[in-house]
Amino acid sequence: MAKLRWGLIGGGRGSQIGPAHRISAGLDGAFELCAGALDYRPDEARAFGVELGLTADRAYGSWQEMLASEQVRDDKIELVTIATPNDTHFEIAKAFLQAGFHVLCEKPMTMTVEEGEEIVALAATHKRICAVNYGYSGYALVRHMKAMVARGDLGNIRLVVAEFAHGHHADAADADNPRVRWRYDPAQAGISAQFADCGIHAMHMASFVTGQEVTRLSADIVSTISSRELEDDAMVNFRMDGGAVGRLWTSSIAIGRQHGLTLQIFGEKGGLRWAQEQPNQLYWMPLNERVQIIERGEANLSPEADSASRVTVGHAEGMPLAFANIYSDLARCIAAEKSGQPMPDTLYPTAEDGLRSMAAVYAVAESGASDGVWVDARPPAFR
Amino acid sequence: MAKLRWGLIGGGRGSQIGPAHRISAGLDGAFELCAGALDYRPDEARAFGVELGLTADRAYGSWQEMLASEQVRDDKIELVTIATPNDTHFEIAKAFLQAGFHVLCEKPMTMTVEEGEEIVALAATHKRICAVNYGYSGYALVRHMKAMVARGDLGNIRLVVAEFAHGHHADAADADNPRVRWRYDPAQAGISAQFADCGIHAMHMASFVTGQEVTRLSADIVSTISSRELEDDAMVNFRMDGGAVGRLWTSSIAIGRQHGLTLQIFGEKGGLRWAQEQPNQLYWMPLNERVQIIERGEANLSPEADSASRVTVGHAEGMPLAFANIYSDLARCIAAEKSGQPMPDTLYPTAEDGLRSMAAVYAVAESGASDGVWVDARPPAFR
Amino acid sequence: MAKLRWGLIGGGRGSQIGPAHRISAGLDGAFELCAGALDYRPDEARAFGVELGLTADRAYGSWQEMLASEQVRDDKIELVTIATPNDTHFEIAKAFLQAGFHVLCEKPMTMTVEEGEEIVALAATHKRICAVNYGYSGYALVRHMKAMVARGDLGNIRLVVAEFAHGHHADAADADNPRVRWRYDPAQAGISAQFADCGIHAMHMASFVTGQEVTRLSADIVSTISSRELEDDAMVNFRMDGGAVGRLWTSSIAIGRQHGLTLQIFGEKGGLRWAQEQPNQLYWMPLNERVQIIERGEANLSPEADSASRVTVGHAEGMPLAFANIYSDLARCIAAEKSGQPMPDTLYPTAEDGLRSMAAVYAVAESGASDGVWVDARPPAFR
Amino acid sequence: MAKLRWGLIGGGRGSQIGPAHRISAGLDGAFELCAGALDYRPDEARAFGVELGLTADRAYGSWQEMLASEQVRDDKIELVTIATPNDTHFEIAKAFLQAGFHVLCEKPMTMTVEEGEEIVALAATHKRICAVNYGYSGYALVRHMKAMVARGDLGNIRLVVAEFAHGHHADAADADNPRVRWRYDPAQAGISAQFADCGIHAMHMASFVTGQEVTRLSADIVSTISSRELEDDAMVNFRMDGGAVGRLWTSSIAIGRQHGLTLQIFGEKGGLRWAQEQPNQLYWMPLNERVQIIERGEANLSPEADSASRVTVGHAEGMPLAFANIYSDLARCIAAEKSGQPMPDTLYPTAEDGLRSMAAVYAVAESGASDGVWVDARPPAFR
Repeated sequence: MAKLRWGLIGGGRGSQIGPAHRISAGLDGAFELCAGALDYRPDEARAFGVELGLTADRAYGSWQEMLASEQVRDDKIELVTIATPNDTHFEIAKAFLQAGFHVLCEKPMTMTVEEGEEIVALAATHKRICAVNYGYSGYALVRHMKAMVARGDLGNIRLVVAEFAHGHHADAADADNPRVRWRYDPAQAGISAQFADCGIHAMHMASFVTGQEVTRLSADIVSTISSRELEDDAMVNFRMDGGAVGRLWTSSIAIGRQHGLTLQIFGEKGGLRWAQEQPNQLYWMPLNERVQIIERGEANLSPEADSASRVTVGHAEGMPLAFANIYSDLARCIAAEKSGQPMPDTLYPTAEDGLRSMAAVYAVAESGASDGVWVDARPPAFR
Repeated sequence: MAKLRWGLIGGGRGSQIGPAHRISAGLDGAFELCAGALDYRPDEARAFGVELGLTADRAYGSWQEMLASEQVRDDKIELVTIATPNDTHFEIAKAFLQAGFHVLCEKPMTMTVEEGEEIVALAATHKRICAVNYGYSGYALVRHMKAMVARGDLGNIRLVVAEFAHGHHADAADADNPRVRWRYDPAQAGISAQFADCGIHAMHMASFVTGQEVTRLSADIVSTISSRELEDDAMVNFRMDGGAVGRLWTSSIAIGRQHGLTLQIFGEKGGLRWAQEQPNQLYWMPLNERVQIIERGEANLSPEADSASRVTVGHAEGMPLAFANIYSDLARCIAAEKSGQPMPDTLYPTAEDGLRSMAAVYAVAESGASDGVWVDARPPAFR
Repeated sequence: MAKLRWGLIGGGRGSQIGPAHRISAGLDGAFELCAGALDYRPDEARAFGVELGLTADRAYGSWQEMLASEQVRDDKIELVTIATPNDTHFEIAKAFLQAGFHVLCEKPMTMTVEEGEEIVALAATHKRICAVNYGYSGYALVRHMKAMVARGDLGNIRLVVAEFAHGHHADAADADNPRVRWRYDPAQAGISAQFADCGIHAMHMASFVTGQEVTRLSADIVSTISSRELEDDAMVNFRMDGGAVGRLWTSSIAIGRQHGLTLQIFGEKGGLRWAQEQPNQLYWMPLNERVQIIERGEANLSPEADSASRVTVGHAEGMPLAFANIYSDLARCIAAEKSGQPMPDTLYPTAEDGLRSMAAVYAVAESGASDGVWVDARPPAFR
Repeated sequence: MAKLRWGLIGGGRGSQIGPAHRISAGLDGAFELCAGALDYRPDEARAFGVELGLTADRAYGSWQEMLASEQVRDDKIELVTIATPNDTHFEIAKAFLQAGFHVLCEKPMTMTVEEGEEIVALAATHKRICAVNYGYSGYALVRHMKAMVARGDLGNIRLVVAEFAHGHHADAADADNPRVRWRYDPAQAGISAQFADCGIHAMHMASFVTGQEVTRLSADIVSTISSRELEDDAMVNFRMDGGAVGRLWTSSIAIGRQHGLTLQIFGEKGGLRWAQEQPNQLYWMPLNERVQIIERGEANLSPEADSASRVTVGHAEGMPLAFANIYSDLARCIAAEKSGQPMPDTLYPTAEDGLRSMAAVYAVAESGASDGVWVDARPPAFR
């Protein structure tokens, strides 16, 4: 199988997310980095591209240059990943979708609900993939949780408890640190800081695993460091369209927590607990029985888990392999399209997911500004 | 030192809490069980009392009989513990306080705020101790957390995250189980089920450790099993009088969680994490340093922790020893009173704590019934 | 039920083990401290005894004085606990057994195998109980492990892996610390330091749980701190009379380990893992299934576990409650004897266990001194 | 940087180790799979090679065919990985080294000490790299442990405790399972089963981290399933040339343990504990301080850890990324050679390590067959 041609926008030198994408896209040998616009500074973008092995003509100085060039090449890229600052996602995704490219966009997909709706519509009109990188949903045991819920192991889901609470912005002395400050500045970050940055991952996970969408929510948002205009801690209660109750805590001031993405699911017939920091174990308790430890890679897991797993039981798999499962899904779809095969079943997060997140961000901001009044969390189009 | 004479009401055969009190009261040799009214059935009460070693004349058939007899004895009991069904706490505590006895009352201290205020007033008027058994506050490392906060190790407290979420009422088939059903029946349980049963423990812990009181709260309460009229799951956001933000989750349908009382405290200068199920370790992370594991019994802990600790580091201490620290505090106070010494510093939960809990229960019910509107959580007397 | 009269020798002010015995003996209300010789200094012994509530005539200045007095009293003590320095255990136990007292002796029971044989013989001759305080065998889940093995849940036992490795003597600067130095001085400690102090606990546990006795062993012993004449680290391989293979590591220089008593049992049909520092959970893996977490206090455990358990599931029980189960066993035996009932089934460690440990200590020293040659680990009488 | 051309021998369809190598080699984009002989069946080898994207002329039917063809190509492979059955490693490695190829060989490198010595000599003579895949040494925190020891954080190392004990061969019914049976058959597996398969990983780790080599050892080996001629459980005590004492337990019948590679290092000034199943945390206890949790990816780790780490703190990295660090080391060396630069500092395991392991395997077998007699564990050439 020839490798698919892949392009990357953003993810320059020193970026955290860039290496994760490069590792994940290439990990199974399905994608090869063929083009990139890796920095907002043209010279650096080109230099770093060449350094990563791109040919000089495809180490672009800007995404506009990349778009103009790639769309007329015979060997044009077959997927573009957008890993730029948040407020540029929309225009880049829009431009590439309109030009007929498949897109994988970092979260948040857009800065407004309206933009999100536009992206969803564009992807549909142009019949292009627009995936959003809720990459934690690629973990084998997260997909196994989803499979367990779907096949009824837990019965009806009563309650979802999600957390994404870390302590990396807890130092008040960071008020002037440029790597932190912009996140709490509405001019740069939009209407939400911590919920938009981390909370939407946790909310996506809740939906992904339960197969239910959030309908209404009530939020309590606070800025525990007084110089911040946006929240660094939020508690969101919500309801889902399948009847589940949700509770979601996100924080950036929880000193001592490194990452803090966890998910607990409680149904009529059992409960599940999973944590991103120890992703190879899943705690499962069937009603009235004992807690069991499900190990990634053990025999007789669900097909969804098996196909998302690469090394034998007892060996840790981590985040890059989870992200790689998103890329693997996309590769299978693109390959199917190329060969005229029907689309395979996949689990990658879609533009609809990106849109729902954006609606949730606005709902959280609205509720949070109004003493936690319950608001509709759905995009208008999905009400 | 002669043992103090102790009486127990409730805690009969098969009771869960009775053995815990008997073990804890006697553990340090400070109290000796001298009188009891251990069951609501007089014959059983007397029989079980004798079985436990009481003399026949002090193995009473009812608390009224016990009160009548004890108050005229020369060797009357010096402390009475009330471990009866919740709706009887008030009248028994009231009667014993009025008769001049020191009281340790199981939680909840009363069923209404007004009753709580009456108990507080009675204790003050009669200069009697009325303690409430928030026994988890007796753990050595919980007291150490309080000491760390008090001496400023964490700086100002920004956030408290408390949980008391278990899964022991998750079986819908228990709708007709008499051991479970009454808890969700307003006629027997009052206005709150899970919050009143477990949530107030977690809320007391938040106050105990931070030294701050809850002022306002907003609650989201649900009954995930449809036959229940009272909540089996609740999320409570709150604010404290020292500026801390609080988040409290309590549940009885979280299958796979055995007990689930945990506390996380985040301040300007560090974070703490503790769990009742592993009470001998405390996770402490000073800002910008590494997580450290504080061990109960290690050298150079706070005086509060040292005096609450009985065996050497590395050996587990559990719940009975935590409860015993409440009794130990009471013994020191009663001994001081008997000998005319000044009252020692102690940390046992008081009737004021019991009253605050009751105000919180009503606030949770009120907020929960009104879509989470923020309400005052304080007893009227403390506003 | 009247309390049994209990005496304590040793365990004076500042002792680590004294408080553990006092808490444990009194915990269920079965024993009452009536006599004591608590210190080797007569005045201190008497003073501390009175302080603990003894009447002046039974707060003895020495064990000899105590023996002389108690054996002629009508209300003589019904059990004596010996918690003195190791090299005095034999003569005290011998004297009290000969005088007709039941004895609970701290480990090691004696300093030589010959002494151990004499104690066993004396207990048999005088029909007195001589228990040895391998108190960790009192944990509910340890007894449950034994029950699981006995009823065949694991099939034949293939392998036992036991550890008792901590780091509390790892500081070379402690070479002159009197609390540490004597332990590595043959003149005071005998032929073994760490194995005799901690290793025999782990070896007793291996025998207790499997129901098998150690027959042969090979030891590798080292002194990692050069000033020490006795071992601070040892690895012992052994064979058991039911066919199990054993591996036992004990250390006092394993910095970062607080206590370190753990037990793993592997049979044909499953494996078990337990750690003293988290004694309320037991990890059980049936062959070809998943690891399950057994919780102390859960429903449907073995009778042995249930009767060793005092508080509800999810609440921690610790070491004092484990020790209390040894006392509870003794109380039931003594009560049966007093009332002429048949001896109940109990699980307390016996003088035979103490003797076997002493034989193992000598075998470890012998093997360790001879490059790990395999030696018989049994007392001559049991070969 | 152009990718290096990589070849793979073995690792065919259904292989466990094949995917791990393919992921790891390609993960950083340094190597591209250009040639392979992936199965012992020529047709399958060619078919699977094409399936993996090889051109037909380099999807070879056998390693001999691959060697003959590659050595005369201008674009010959620059590294070959040998992932075939153990008893073929020697001849393949020998042939490729003689033909001037760099080699990465799966462990065990050879079946005899003499073969190992020959490989070491060949690599030296031909100035070719011969690395051995002790891939666990590639974990960032393992390299950090090595760095901590090297810079003196622990002082002199007193004790190393290594384990590689799992339960995947515990089912006696597997006696006839062809995937298991050959491992315990001397005709196919050689003189050792579990120690040669897993124990040498643990022993390599002990040497890697401490920077000391094993000099003497004593082994206790057993076959707990009677049909087995080779050991399924072994305990090895050893001494190292820097004075450290070693203890190593390896097992394949430890039901309930999934992988079981762990390492504990105890020095004069502190202790470390690490487990492969949770590789992103390292427990560090400086003497007389508290246990600290070192997180992979945290600020200010050693350069060795930083360069072995790819994603941000709090995100799990797993085994493929550890293996990729071996490949990354090799890529840097090969690139340096190509460009005439001096060899960079690297940490990959070498043929000398492979030879030492083989000497240890024979020493364990010899000692194990002679009641644990202490034997020299070094290859003759290193004595």
